[in-house]
Amino acid sequence: MSMKRRSLIKGAAAGAAAGAAALARPALAQGRIEWRMVTTWPKNFPGQGTGAERFAKSVGEATDGRLTIKVFGAGELVPAFESFDAVTRGAADLFHGTPYYWINKSKAVNFFSTVPFGLVTGELAAWMNFGGGQELWDELYDQFGLKGVHGGSTGVQMGGWFNKEVRTVDDVKGMKMRIPGIGGEALRKMGMTTINLPAGEIFAALQSGAIDATEWVGPWNDLSLGFYKVAKYYYWPGMHEPGTQIEITFDKKKLLALPKDLQAIVFACCRAENEMLTSEFNARNGQALETLIRQHQVQLRRFPNEFLRAYGEACGQVIAEMRDTGDAITKKVVQSFLKSRSELMAWNRIAEQGFMNARQLEYKFG
Amino acid sequence: MSMKRRSLIKGAAAGAAAGAAALARPALAQGRIEWRMVTTWPKNFPGQGTGAERFAKSVGEATDGRLTIKVFGAGELVPAFESFDAVTRGAADLFHGTPYYWINKSKAVNFFSTVPFGLVTGELAAWMNFGGGQELWDELYDQFGLKGVHGGSTGVQMGGWFNKEVRTVDDVKGMKMRIPGIGGEALRKMGMTTINLPAGEIFAALQSGAIDATEWVGPWNDLSLGFYKVAKYYYWPGMHEPGTQIEITFDKKKLLALPKDLQAIVFACCRAENEMLTSEFNARNGQALETLIRQHQVQLRRFPNEFLRAYGEACGQVIAEMRDTGDAITKKVVQSFLKSRSELMAWNRIAEQGFMNARQLEYKFG
Repeated sequence: MSMKRRSLIKGAAAGAAAGAAALARPALAQGRIEWRMVTTWPKNFPGQGTGAERFAKSVGEATDGRLTIKVFGAGELVPAFESFDAVTRGAADLFHGTPYYWINKSKAVNFFSTVPFGLVTGELAAWMNFGGGQELWDELYDQFGLKGVHGGSTGVQMGGWFNKEVRTVDDVKGMKMRIPGIGGEALRKMGMTTINLPAGEIFAALQSGAIDATEWVGPWNDLSLGFYKVAKYYYWPGMHEPGTQIEITFDKKKLLALPKDLQAIVFACCRAENEMLTSEFNARNGQALETLIRQHQVQLRRFPNEFLRAYGEACGQVIAEMRDTGDAITKKVVQSFLKSRSELMAWNRIAEQGFMNARQLEYKFG
Repeated sequence: MSMKRRSLIKGAAAGAAAGAAALARPALAQGRIEWRMVTTWPKNFPGQGTGAERFAKSVGEATDGRLTIKVFGAGELVPAFESFDAVTRGAADLFHGTPYYWINKSKAVNFFSTVPFGLVTGELAAWMNFGGGQELWDELYDQFGLKGVHGGSTGVQMGGWFNKEVRTVDDVKGMKMRIPGIGGEALRKMGMTTINLPAGEIFAALQSGAIDATEWVGPWNDLSLGFYKVAKYYYWPGMHEPGTQIEITFDKKKLLALPKDLQAIVFACCRAENEMLTSEFNARNGQALETLIRQHQVQLRRFPNEFLRAYGEACGQVIAEMRDTGDAITKKVVQSFLKSRSELMAWNRIAEQGFMNARQLEYKFG
């Protein structure tokens, strides 16, 4: 997943407009509060963008209009990648994005989005709610006057669209792929050239041969971008992003200044949206995968074990480096995450993983 | 999972008390509403019972006390298994249980709890929210004036505690196991004797040899009941219950009579509790499994593939019979469920299942 670079260019103009809008904001009657939520997605982008709108609507309904949230698409009020700073400087009241976009603040942010070879969606929720994850995220964001809550997961992403087959570890050497984040860093260790491109530029790059491969999200998001028209193989599993979490992040002072009942409503609506968007990705990915295979004859390929082992080792190295050279909070986050990962892997090996593997054996209807 | 028979015996007395309590309920000031929630669990039972309390508390906070929910443990107001009828006849306003307890109303209820070889928690949410599941549940419960919403999942349960090893399909013939539901019905087809026992009687039955095996829930719930003291082997995977859902079910008329904002708050709090309880089971199961293995030397065993294949086929037969001989709504539910199952299995084979299998290959920290 990544952002549109184009929205960064629009930034300066939008920033100026934002200042004017803040001054012009009308006084609201009867203590009614209107918040402005900036997002890192295009307005109404299916999934991430529509989820932001659904969350805003749910808060308005549950508060009977005492708190309303106006949603701005990327570039409308500020550029996508300025969402975090827009809230810290008061130009917006909350934002809708994903933590690993704010890597310049601390490497620890990765762990609140997704970690290669890390945790699937339900496991990440277990770490966040009952393994100390939320407390560490709070400690990190407190430094910026922010409070973040999860608001939906893409689920396990796809490994990516490739125009060359990956049969051995050597096959990826010299290959050029669009892939950001820790996963991309690990692939560079393995001899790949990686770049980041905004969603709107990927298709052309793949078509022209400027890149050999790209990852984006999963079947639902990828189908709409039409990659099946210009790439031969669709690889799985997406080890680099096993359940990328959306964040709904607030100006903490403004959040705590709300009456207690409004605070409780806001948190409940975040968790409710977390369930809705996560289940929407799961449902729509299943449907879109069927369309890709049946209508568009997409060829699914699994990364070979040799590649997966080397990739896992490279990702482990990147994470160990983060732990050893990162700031104090990053060290704590890595340690806490790995402890929960060990417990959750041992459990889910015999629970969800064990079940899903056995489920494939048999299920007849006579 | 099952209920305490003891609470059924307490029933008559509790029922009479309930009538008196209804008459004595004080008028509430300023349009404040107090609801009574009966539960099918002992008061504050870790997981299911504490989840009910957390949900009630969250509604009180988010409504600033305009709607408060008083929680009654099983047998306090009505016996556990009378919770459904208690709400339909107005003795309580909502209940906290799980749909497969109401099998005498329609066989379709199973699908809103869990289905053997069916869907894991996240997949069930996809079917409920975006695959037509909730609409079918509404159609079913409408007949009884009820509205149900999911409020937490146990996750994949364990296959059970056994005192004899399961090496072949023949090994289960003549074995006596405590296991309710569709899973139990399928095991009877395979030559097992199955019975249902309330939680409080299982330990003694296993110790005395009256039963050879039992399933209950998973490590967290099972550890507290001490089965590791009287059973040799702990089998996985729990194909019979791949993510048993708690329901929060309302008197529909009373729910729709609430102001619109209170309705929205109640639904948001249900979804919020769904996330909390599900992630709590995931986290605590991981910790409890470690305790069972390290402190209590519990021996984990995987059911052999031969057994799993035969079990899957038997479960498929039971479900096909439900579809072919069940009421009209059951037929529709089975068809809708199997359609989503097919899409979700195809997707998660390469997503969560594919990821979790590959995750085991390698992850080193240098």
